[in-house]
Amino acid sequence: MKIQRNSLSSIKSVDFNNIKFGEIFTDHMFVCDFENGEWNKPEILPYQAMKLDPSTSVFHYGQAIFEGMKAYKDSQGEIWLFRPDQNIERLNRSAIRLSIPEFPESYFFDGLKNLLLLDSDWIKPGIGNSLYIRPFVFASEQSIQASPSKSYKFIIICSPAKSYYIDETNVKIAEKFSRAATGGVGFAKTAGNYAAQFYPTSLAIEEGFQQIIWTDAYSHQFIEESGTMNIFVKINNTLITTPVSDRILDGITRKSILEIGNHLGIDVEVRPISVDELIYSSNNGSLQEMFGCGTAVVINPIKSFGYQNKKYQLPTIKDPISTYLKEKIISIQYNTSEDLFKWRYKVS
Amino acid sequence: MKIQRNSLSSIKSVDFNNIKFGEIFTDHMFVCDFENGEWNKPEILPYQAMKLDPSTSVFHYGQAIFEGMKAYKDSQGEIWLFRPDQNIERLNRSAIRLSIPEFPESYFFDGLKNLLLLDSDWIKPGIGNSLYIRPFVFASEQSIQASPSKSYKFIIICSPAKSYYIDETNVKIAEKFSRAATGGVGFAKTAGNYAAQFYPTSLAIEEGFQQIIWTDAYSHQFIEESGTMNIFVKINNTLITTPVSDRILDGITRKSILEIGNHLGIDVEVRPISVDELIYSSNNGSLQEMFGCGTAVVINPIKSFGYQNKKYQLPTIKDPISTYLKEKIISIQYNTSEDLFKWRYKVS
Repeated sequence: MKIQRNSLSSIKSVDFNNIKFGEIFTDHMFVCDFENGEWNKPEILPYQAMKLDPSTSVFHYGQAIFEGMKAYKDSQGEIWLFRPDQNIERLNRSAIRLSIPEFPESYFFDGLKNLLLLDSDWIKPGIGNSLYIRPFVFASEQSIQASPSKSYKFIIICSPAKSYYIDETNVKIAEKFSRAATGGVGFAKTAGNYAAQFYPTSLAIEEGFQQIIWTDAYSHQFIEESGTMNIFVKINNTLITTPVSDRILDGITRKSILEIGNHLGIDVEVRPISVDELIYSSNNGSLQEMFGCGTAVVINPIKSFGYQNKKYQLPTIKDPISTYLKEKIISIQYNTSEDLFKWRYKVS
Repeated sequence: MKIQRNSLSSIKSVDFNNIKFGEIFTDHMFVCDFENGEWNKPEILPYQAMKLDPSTSVFHYGQAIFEGMKAYKDSQGEIWLFRPDQNIERLNRSAIRLSIPEFPESYFFDGLKNLLLLDSDWIKPGIGNSLYIRPFVFASEQSIQASPSKSYKFIIICSPAKSYYIDETNVKIAEKFSRAATGGVGFAKTAGNYAAQFYPTSLAIEEGFQQIIWTDAYSHQFIEESGTMNIFVKINNTLITTPVSDRILDGITRKSILEIGNHLGIDVEVRPISVDELIYSSNNGSLQEMFGCGTAVVINPIKSFGYQNKKYQLPTIKDPISTYLKEKIISIQYNTSEDLFKWRYKVS
């Protein structure tokens, strides 16, 4: 792979103890262009701005997909990824739905490896430190014709991240707005799905919540996702999550929790969860936990949910399963436990 | 307004008789940045590429909206717009839903006027010639934090257009895919709505259709839009279109047709149209016409529709209402008829 080194690293200017998520990027980026019907030779370049014509398709018609991953460094200085095969597989599922040409898996892994080794100083060891990796693809044709672009850019950029203390998360169950249509693009990690959430979320924030629990667009009676995360509830000692569908993202943390749960003999169910069930189980005390899960925070416990102007508090639990599962996953990610499921991927 | 003239016009290199839509742009562009909580002073610049960081929000989360308009030149050389007040109003409705700050109406009109006067040589007189105008806004903050951007770019670019002969349009009624969720962003002119249509449309094209008639995501029993256009049908001499909703774009051509229809005493109904009704009326011969409408083509007659592997032909009509309405609208746009509804806007 062609690698053009950055002669001027910016790492010295970074205060790794005070990092705001998603605003600082490492010295290099991986770039690959799709043109004339094929993905060109990929290369690694110094991190830099791109020159784009105002007619570039992505600004107008939003053909854009992405993934979110993290690299971890263990105490020996080895770099690890968590189930990266799942990311490239999902990226290509998103690609198909958005009429974007699929990206070759070998380019993806070569790019990741070379980029992470080149910028390895940006990955700090220690639980909580990680390098957030953002692969993304966007339509780069210079045309405002409303049809699939003929050219694309695949890029990987990396941003150092620190796990941060999350304030109480109080969620509002969506009663009017919705995130995805059956037959739509809800399962794809595509740009437009995120933009569509901002306004309803901002209204919920004004009401004192931090996130929205999305419900089905038709009846608003079945919960689907929490913010940009998958959702789990624990009722009567059973861990339950909603089935994935064409409306719901097939989250990698979600499926990892299911596999760990099954392995540990935890009662796990994958089935629709109604708002009625949440309220009923909250009222009779059988609702024990609720949490969102995703790459950014692993697991995010929910403190309360609001529905029809009423607030339902989750109980305070000693040794919650959310903490237990989070620690299990983190220990695999940081190479401090056995890799029972073969999820770790060594970058070397 | 600050105007920086392009010293090197590219107009001489353009063959105005052979223009492919959306690939050629005029010499100037209008640009206005939103920063620190307000829209800065707008300016007109030579048409040019922008430098954007790979972390720019729009690539990742798709906060982007646009409008489509046209400028027409009459035989006296005067430049006209068609209901531009409706465009800025709708742009700002889209902006609210996408958590984008609304754009000042006075900046919009000032920008349009200055830009069109500067590039007026690009607008050729004669029915069929026009200048397509593309105002758009996108999130420009350099951050991959999944929240509304703190900065935006509002831009207007212009592309010469020629009305082209449209081959027969055969549409497929969506049975599985859908365009918009109730409570979602279907009514907004936002980038992600278009990307989401490309894949289902490409499948329909493979089956020999040119467009999809979108149906409601829940039952697929009620028609909503045709491709990126609103849809009308004529059954038993009544012109019918579906009501707008949070799933359906409030099209300017659509509302103009309704107003013209009412004024002319045509029987017009705004009510849900079921697939069953289409099939029933096609079978008994009462379905007379179907057409899509929008800024790009004004009115696009539909030749046939496909549903559950059956094809339903529209009859060949002498003096179709679609042709009549199209001519009415075009005559207003090109200043060859009286402006009964005060829809024309003179650029001077």
